[in-house]
Amino acid sequence: MTELGSLAADPAPEARNQPWSLVDAAAAAELACEYGIPIPRQEIVSRPEDAVRAAAEIGYPVALKAVRADIVHKTELGAVALDLRDSEAVHAAATEMSASFEGETDLLVQRMARGDIEMIVGTKRDPTFGPVVLVGLGGVWAEVLNDVIVRLAPVSAAEAEEMLGELRGAALLHGDRGQPAADLYSLSQTIVAASRLAADHPEVLELDLNPLICRTDGVTAVDVRIIRSEPASLVARASGAPAHLDRLFEPRSLAVIGASRDARKQGGRLLHYLVKHGYQGELFAVNPNATEIVGCMTVPSIEALPVVPDLVCIALPSGGVVPALEAAGKLGVRMAIVFTAGFSEVGAAGDQLQQEILEVAARYGMRLCGPNTAGVVSLPGHMCATMGMAFEADEVPAGAVALLTQSGAIGGALLSRLWDTGAGFSRWVSVGNEADLGLGDYLNWLADDPATELIAMFIESVRDVPRFREACERARARGKPVLAYKTGSSEAGRRAVQSHTAALAGDHVVYTAALRSLGVIQVDDLQTLIDVAVLLSWQPAPRGGRIGIVSASGGACSVAADECKRHGLEVPQLSPEARARVAELVPDFAATDNPVDVTMEVTVRPEMVGHVTQVLLEQDEIDAVLVMMTTNADPPAVRVAETVIEAASTRAKTVVVARMGADFLAPESLRRYRRARIPVLPMPDRAVRALAAAVGHGRSGERRGG
Amino acid sequence: MTELGSLAADPAPEARNQPWSLVDAAAAAELACEYGIPIPRQEIVSRPEDAVRAAAEIGYPVALKAVRADIVHKTELGAVALDLRDSEAVHAAATEMSASFEGETDLLVQRMARGDIEMIVGTKRDPTFGPVVLVGLGGVWAEVLNDVIVRLAPVSAAEAEEMLGELRGAALLHGDRGQPAADLYSLSQTIVAASRLAADHPEVLELDLNPLICRTDGVTAVDVRIIRSEPASLVARASGAPAHLDRLFEPRSLAVIGASRDARKQGGRLLHYLVKHGYQGELFAVNPNATEIVGCMTVPSIEALPVVPDLVCIALPSGGVVPALEAAGKLGVRMAIVFTAGFSEVGAAGDQLQQEILEVAARYGMRLCGPNTAGVVSLPGHMCATMGMAFEADEVPAGAVALLTQSGAIGGALLSRLWDTGAGFSRWVSVGNEADLGLGDYLNWLADDPATELIAMFIESVRDVPRFREACERARARGKPVLAYKTGSSEAGRRAVQSHTAALAGDHVVYTAALRSLGVIQVDDLQTLIDVAVLLSWQPAPRGGRIGIVSASGGACSVAADECKRHGLEVPQLSPEARARVAELVPDFAATDNPVDVTMEVTVRPEMVGHVTQVLLEQDEIDAVLVMMTTNADPPAVRVAETVIEAASTRAKTVVVARMGADFLAPESLRRYRRARIPVLPMPDRAVRALAAAVGHGRSGERRGG
Repeated sequence: MTELGSLAADPAPEARNQPWSLVDAAAAAELACEYGIPIPRQEIVSRPEDAVRAAAEIGYPVALKAVRADIVHKTELGAVALDLRDSEAVHAAATEMSASFEGETDLLVQRMARGDIEMIVGTKRDPTFGPVVLVGLGGVWAEVLNDVIVRLAPVSAAEAEEMLGELRGAALLHGDRGQPAADLYSLSQTIVAASRLAADHPEVLELDLNPLICRTDGVTAVDVRIIRSEPASLVARASGAPAHLDRLFEPRSLAVIGASRDARKQGGRLLHYLVKHGYQGELFAVNPNATEIVGCMTVPSIEALPVVPDLVCIALPSGGVVPALEAAGKLGVRMAIVFTAGFSEVGAAGDQLQQEILEVAARYGMRLCGPNTAGVVSLPGHMCATMGMAFEADEVPAGAVALLTQSGAIGGALLSRLWDTGAGFSRWVSVGNEADLGLGDYLNWLADDPATELIAMFIESVRDVPRFREACERARARGKPVLAYKTGSSEAGRRAVQSHTAALAGDHVVYTAALRSLGVIQVDDLQTLIDVAVLLSWQPAPRGGRIGIVSASGGACSVAADECKRHGLEVPQLSPEARARVAELVPDFAATDNPVDVTMEVTVRPEMVGHVTQVLLEQDEIDAVLVMMTTNADPPAVRVAETVIEAASTRAKTVVVARMGADFLAPESLRRYRRARIPVLPMPDRAVRALAAAVGHGRSGERRGG
Repeated sequence: MTELGSLAADPAPEARNQPWSLVDAAAAAELACEYGIPIPRQEIVSRPEDAVRAAAEIGYPVALKAVRADIVHKTELGAVALDLRDSEAVHAAATEMSASFEGETDLLVQRMARGDIEMIVGTKRDPTFGPVVLVGLGGVWAEVLNDVIVRLAPVSAAEAEEMLGELRGAALLHGDRGQPAADLYSLSQTIVAASRLAADHPEVLELDLNPLICRTDGVTAVDVRIIRSEPASLVARASGAPAHLDRLFEPRSLAVIGASRDARKQGGRLLHYLVKHGYQGELFAVNPNATEIVGCMTVPSIEALPVVPDLVCIALPSGGVVPALEAAGKLGVRMAIVFTAGFSEVGAAGDQLQQEILEVAARYGMRLCGPNTAGVVSLPGHMCATMGMAFEADEVPAGAVALLTQSGAIGGALLSRLWDTGAGFSRWVSVGNEADLGLGDYLNWLADDPATELIAMFIESVRDVPRFREACERARARGKPVLAYKTGSSEAGRRAVQSHTAALAGDHVVYTAALRSLGVIQVDDLQTLIDVAVLLSWQPAPRGGRIGIVSASGGACSVAADECKRHGLEVPQLSPEARARVAELVPDFAATDNPVDVTMEVTVRPEMVGHVTQVLLEQDEIDAVLVMMTTNADPPAVRVAETVIEAASTRAKTVVVARMGADFLAPESLRRYRRARIPVLPMPDRAVRALAAAVGHGRSGERRGG
């Protein structure tokens, strides 16, 4: 493999203080060649006479380009002459160029590449995820419309083809607009090659093939630009041994350091929730001034604890955290949750304090959750070690959904919304500042957790990517869906990049590509995060996007079909056989094709809804059924629910109910649907959004042979 | 004005049986000229010699085109020769063309137009809304990306400029991609001219200026195609005198024909709801077999009624409707609601029955609501003349929102959702088949209704456009917002059109353009319809899209800012003065710029939220404040509510609260917000969507000087 280090040009004077430099054209071309990126025949020369000689060897027509490290956008400087057809033209152009760009300028003589379509292929090194590869159509497509597809590098040929298919302008590549079709094989191979180059060379910050000229029988990269980092800014590969988190999630004993009688204080609230929700291990309160708080054994100091607790929860003012950790470490404690705020989230002063607690922890081999966390909740042991006010609730229903949040406040709120749908959860971690344990560590443990079937995350940023990637792969291998809502899109693109092509992949775009590559289902809003979590923990994932709809209102059929279209789901026609079976169940004037409208006759014969659901579920062309009700008040709604529940009881395919009418109209039927683990969503758009995201999971499972 | 009738070409043979024909090129060009659409110098000739003579007169270079009514897409047939620079070239091309297209083919000799940008301008006659004008950028922009802007014709110059500004590729017109800028003045004037041509000529089905060549100093329509209808298919202008609907909405007496004791039957349910919800007029039940039903005076027949009721409600099997209307008409009844189904919604047999009831009604000067309606509810008189099961509710809160729905089932469901937010409504009409009275009639009456401040609609299609337009204008003049959710987008584009350009404006696109032209706020989902209705009936409309955000969670700040960006709202930076005032209210480590994060300190000092809200409301750079809470449980949530309510009490600007935490955590604070008429939405995306739609209303009011 060619080492770029030895090929790199002496950087242009103004670039010497930058942490990056433009690789010289010859070296860039050589590296591209090595990876199989097709470039035109070319030669670099110094004098016009040599240009003429080189052109004759290369064959006419040729292009002539001035090459110098400080000329980034050549056409803007008039440093390119195209389609030169004889020696006179080459000599004239070379002479003019040499005169304009005197000094260190060389001349690149290149066989003129002809083609029908111009593409852009590039890579950039994302500060979080490392190398990503991107592809777009040239011209307005990429630069005005931002029609660019991004993936983590390297990609396989199949992934490269998938990327091309996802371009909005994909039709152009198939020759639909009168042009010849592009050579998709060579194009995909070039994307693969670029992605491998970037993955193999951490010093390549950006690779820019712009334009990549495409013909029916090949592609040519007429301009290969590489921006490399100075060695100092190489991205370090993080690594870490898996943490043993059983002590955190299932401690047999737990001590609250900074416990208080006053439930308005943090230590008070924490202890209050632990007691109220029935923590099943041994619970100790540590407070220098108290003898017994809310019925717990209370001791004046950590040293006075009668056992070495599996877990300590520290809810002290920030000045008290280091001494407490020191004492706990000495005692032999190996796991701590630091609730206290005032660490790196408040700036430089906090940074130092955070460094101190890490040092103490390292000294004793102790692992930390937090600081600045709202805590950890683990329902199998009834442990609500949290200050989140959602735990004011009298009941905290258990279920199969685990929640990881990079915001404590949002975590508690999402749990309350989850309970509101009738679903429950297994574990919740508010990850805090992630000074020690991070998102990837928790996710890794949850992937193996028998109490957890699905993990939903609220993400601001991923810090330890290798660990996170490993955890996503583990969850995927276990068949557990991982869902994520990522915030911060309004900050997209703030980070500066050097080349035009790299700027097309903003932070948010890279996150989306990375989460997808890792098999994570990304959702666009927090409500959908909850809705999909409930759907996938209660129902089988739909194996495809073909939705059967049954309703008792023509208007509702229309709205549901609109929403399916908007979210990329199909509403397929039924076979004549299926229509005949539906026709036996519904009135003469009902619509028997999908969406099926059983009509207002439903008030007299509510069982029609379930019977039609049954027929739809039996059809090969249907992957999931949406029961779309409007007002539907009890008691007829209860009869609808009974028959829908019966139809869904085999659990072979997905069934979701959307109810436009308010909950107060049908409390009993809602209870029944919940008991039967059939999700009920209030509006068609919410139901369809959840279905569409769940289809994503079902499909990706299929692609992986899962 | 030129009459197209006299200009129309004899249609091509295969076009003779079509209800449309292509207008010949000379006539089309003449009409375009008359309206000031710039076309190149041109002449139509028959023989190659004449083409050479014409070219010399016109001036080289020229284009040569074969013109014949059956050649719609000229380039595809090789019937165009461009850029002919001398008489030899013209003669050769003309000879070849004449040979290929013998018979009735003429030759159009045209001065070659040069330009930098190709646009498309066109019109089409929509079956519902009449003439619309559309503009797009040529090439992939319009045809692949569907980047086309549509308005009802005619448009003003200001509207034409606005259309150009809304193109996704608008930057191209300003020369941002290296091309010269287009002459926006000439371009706008051409759009205006095309729109006037279409508006003046009902026989013009489609006008197609494709391409419209644009330069920095002018535009040229090199190809003017007009498709005209045969006289038979001219669009008739509907008209109708305003209906006097007081009898429908505020009847002093009401008779239920087909009343029943059995509340499961339609007539039984109707009577039950009228009694249950306390109808304040005189109520009669008509049933041949009963003497008294649920305490109402019951008579055996219409003839036996002791008074002529203002309104009769007919809930009989379909066979009984005509005799009942006949009897009611004879008695002197002038207003009827026909609940019965089985009319035009079931096909041909129903069509005839519907015609019959219209004839009876016309004979007696009676107006009809329905048939196939779920009824009319009018809360000022406590009249719930409906079968909608939402009225199983014990209370039906009154408010300022009126609802018009083209689906009875969806109407009732939406009302229940409205109540669920704590808001109420004034009137609801389920318009049914609109055999007589239609959407426009009801809307017109509601525009003048003192009990109604806002009208929300569920629309499948608008039938009587002139009436609807008049009603929208009336509502606008009264300052009453009109909101609409339109279903049927998945059927867009089904209707066949002849020209390529017209196909770019599908049904749904035309509806969107028409509703916008009429000042109607269109929303994308039904939940937003309810949310915006509540927001605008409770709070002042925001005068602009600059949103101040206050939260107690950094994560929630980020999510809310993302949502604002996604929906086109701004989150402006605060002035140094405002930041200083915020800093006095919040902890040192809090974020004092917009979005303001008061931090978790809120659990101790909940009043910070209201005080910061107050500061934000006082800033000139803020139009509305979003209070973004996460879990926020009572009792601290009550204190937050008190201070926010106080800050919002001047009602000078819009205040909206989003609460991620479930309602059960904060029942008392929710009650207080509702009492203070501050909308509380469960998730940031819902709150921001509602705000964005409300901003649309506030802004359009401003543009109208309202």
